[in-house]
Amino acid sequence: MDEGPTPPHVVILGGGFGGLAAARKLAGAPVRITLVDRRNHHLFQPLLYQVATAGLSAPSIAAPLRQILRRQDNVTVLLDEALEVDLAARRVRFEHGTLDYDFLIVATGATHAYFGHDEWARWAPGLKTLDDAFAIRRRVLLAFERAERETDADQRRAWLTFVVVGGGPTGVELAGTLAEIARHTLPREFRRSDPSAARVLLVEAGPRLLAAFDPALSAKAQRQLEELGVEVRTGTAVTAIDGDGVCLGDTPLAAYTVLWAAGVAASPLGRQLGAPIDRAGRVRVAGDLSLPAHPDVFVIGDLACVERGDGTLVPGVAPAAKQMGQYVAGRIRGRLDADSTPAPFHYKDQGALATIGRMAAVAQFGRLRLSGPPAWWVWLVAHIYFLIGFRNRLVVLLDWAWAYWTYQRHARIVTGADADAVPAADERPS
Amino acid sequence: MDEGPTPPHVVILGGGFGGLAAARKLAGAPVRITLVDRRNHHLFQPLLYQVATAGLSAPSIAAPLRQILRRQDNVTVLLDEALEVDLAARRVRFEHGTLDYDFLIVATGATHAYFGHDEWARWAPGLKTLDDAFAIRRRVLLAFERAERETDADQRRAWLTFVVVGGGPTGVELAGTLAEIARHTLPREFRRSDPSAARVLLVEAGPRLLAAFDPALSAKAQRQLEELGVEVRTGTAVTAIDGDGVCLGDTPLAAYTVLWAAGVAASPLGRQLGAPIDRAGRVRVAGDLSLPAHPDVFVIGDLACVERGDGTLVPGVAPAAKQMGQYVAGRIRGRLDADSTPAPFHYKDQGALATIGRMAAVAQFGRLRLSGPPAWWVWLVAHIYFLIGFRNRLVVLLDWAWAYWTYQRHARIVTGADADAVPAADERPS
Repeated sequence: MDEGPTPPHVVILGGGFGGLAAARKLAGAPVRITLVDRRNHHLFQPLLYQVATAGLSAPSIAAPLRQILRRQDNVTVLLDEALEVDLAARRVRFEHGTLDYDFLIVATGATHAYFGHDEWARWAPGLKTLDDAFAIRRRVLLAFERAERETDADQRRAWLTFVVVGGGPTGVELAGTLAEIARHTLPREFRRSDPSAARVLLVEAGPRLLAAFDPALSAKAQRQLEELGVEVRTGTAVTAIDGDGVCLGDTPLAAYTVLWAAGVAASPLGRQLGAPIDRAGRVRVAGDLSLPAHPDVFVIGDLACVERGDGTLVPGVAPAAKQMGQYVAGRIRGRLDADSTPAPFHYKDQGALATIGRMAAVAQFGRLRLSGPPAWWVWLVAHIYFLIGFRNRLVVLLDWAWAYWTYQRHARIVTGADADAVPAADERPS
Repeated sequence: MDEGPTPPHVVILGGGFGGLAAARKLAGAPVRITLVDRRNHHLFQPLLYQVATAGLSAPSIAAPLRQILRRQDNVTVLLDEALEVDLAARRVRFEHGTLDYDFLIVATGATHAYFGHDEWARWAPGLKTLDDAFAIRRRVLLAFERAERETDADQRRAWLTFVVVGGGPTGVELAGTLAEIARHTLPREFRRSDPSAARVLLVEAGPRLLAAFDPALSAKAQRQLEELGVEVRTGTAVTAIDGDGVCLGDTPLAAYTVLWAAGVAASPLGRQLGAPIDRAGRVRVAGDLSLPAHPDVFVIGDLACVERGDGTLVPGVAPAAKQMGQYVAGRIRGRLDADSTPAPFHYKDQGALATIGRMAAVAQFGRLRLSGPPAWWVWLVAHIYFLIGFRNRLVVLLDWAWAYWTYQRHARIVTGADADAVPAADERPS
């Protein structure tokens, strides 16, 4: 086995779009790679809202990292959580052991943030992991069950009021899907309550939905949501969230199901890297995505704060993370070949897509603007195309076709330790 | 709405095979039915071991009860847990309210039991619910992850030793599938450890596996398991289970993953019905499945202790529960028509099937005995046929075909609050 010197060790922290792209792009390179993630799976996050809303099952959008990488002999996958990076010793300390690196790629992403209101987390779950999606699925489905059991009209109304906070793509997707479930999936199944009487509110503090899109598309998205029955409240700040509901500005609203899609914060590992960070905790990297003082340490994906030529930031989306991972893999290959004058990372904007409901979406690619059915078809094809693994694509297509024709959502299964109770519901007025 | 007298109220506790069959058989009958379950879904329990072993996703074998019954107008489905039956007042008390009944069908089933060793539960999870299946999936997959991370040879061996306790159909299915996963699914994916070196032991206290089957089939099942690499230990009592492993008789065996498939106990609700119960907590019912002193209260499924003409008991299997549900629905219809001389319940034995692995199974129907590929094909067709819902059948077939050709298991996703840690693993030696 041991012929010649040991190849350099590349440690990749995180198996999301960025980390996985870096590992794959290093296939066949004369390096040893160790990819470490605290979860055993790569997650296709753009479809996570469909797991949360019972349209897809978890294995349809997730695959074990070691299965994805099983044919790439220079990769070892480990399940562990990075706790600390020792830049001087070139070593990462994990919950269960340490690894020395020659090159380090930090791709630990972001999670949702409550802008200093961490106490809102229990009332308004966010959506970043499969467990988050199960928690949201449980709350939404149990709210309709509670309404069916409830005899008091005010209580029933509060159980049938859903507030989604944040008008970005995730908020738009969640609100649109909730409205579809209430209007189309559930009505025949309840005898005492009327799910189609449910209110779904989408609240956005800024002046319009989908701020990253063209204003004309924001307006179209809002109209499509309103056609589905969503009440859109732009320019409205959520000032309080508790067990009774939310305050929109000064106006309280009784709502027992609140979902959080308003903010993200970068992984705390970023603060340990000795480099400047921005307000969201993202690490300001050099033009080649390395740390200014540590050219062998790269930060990519949602954790990286990368400025474009026009002063705007590279957005925290899957294609950007993938491009960064591929770029960094190329940098490491170049470094091994003593290529010392790299071209800086350049983000190729592949456009933006947001889906709203059946045949409802918006899309922009360069100067092209689409909405309604054409945008929806582009969204469908793009998401099926990028889904990892042939089997997943087939099953997801089947699930979607089934859901489209029947209005059914096949994953309406409530599980979890608190399967019989909405978390903390005991503290609600009976 | 209110024309004529209110129709009699049939309350069904439990949406398993028995309760669901009763509700369906009462379609169109002049009764109001309320079906109450503490979970929102009907579970196709015969395939639960495939969710536990990552072959199927949960929604493939579970469907919301209210979706199944949505077209049956005389049924209301409620999510709640029955706490107490007041036979004198003809009323059931639930966690959230009460219901008065004219007829009551108690179909709350059974759960796993540890024969007075409840402390074993944390080390050796059983398999009755979807949450149980997720817990087992998590433990099994994490054991291989731990082995990959482990540097100590003894520890690694303990992480790669799996003990299944109980040689009934569930134990046989779990052991056979675990051996297949270790030998065929995982080996290419690990770099430091060798999953195919894993030991899988199936331990049965009685003299042979599958005691309900013909002895010749028990022997064939054992041979098929051994060909898959399972070590079968019949006539061997498990005398201790803790964080280090098990004691088989007096011999300790280091094994960090122990699964329990050895015993069931009837739902505690049975003890409240004032009727005699057997050792497993099942209720001894009259020939028409009613309580001796309460002809309007029926007990069916795994909770009922029903003797056959030859003195043996009706087995706790899905077809028996279905037949009891249908019979009781017929009795209630008969009672409404003042038919006072019912034929007692008669169980039609539809044979027994147990699957072991690919192309490996045993089956007996009357005097017909099958094993190997023919039995496996019968098993496959029967289980697809009985799966509820056309979509599930299609997806399950697709999953199975995929798994068959690729040896992959698509649901190898670890989730749950303790996704990064085997429960209680902290108490294990390092």
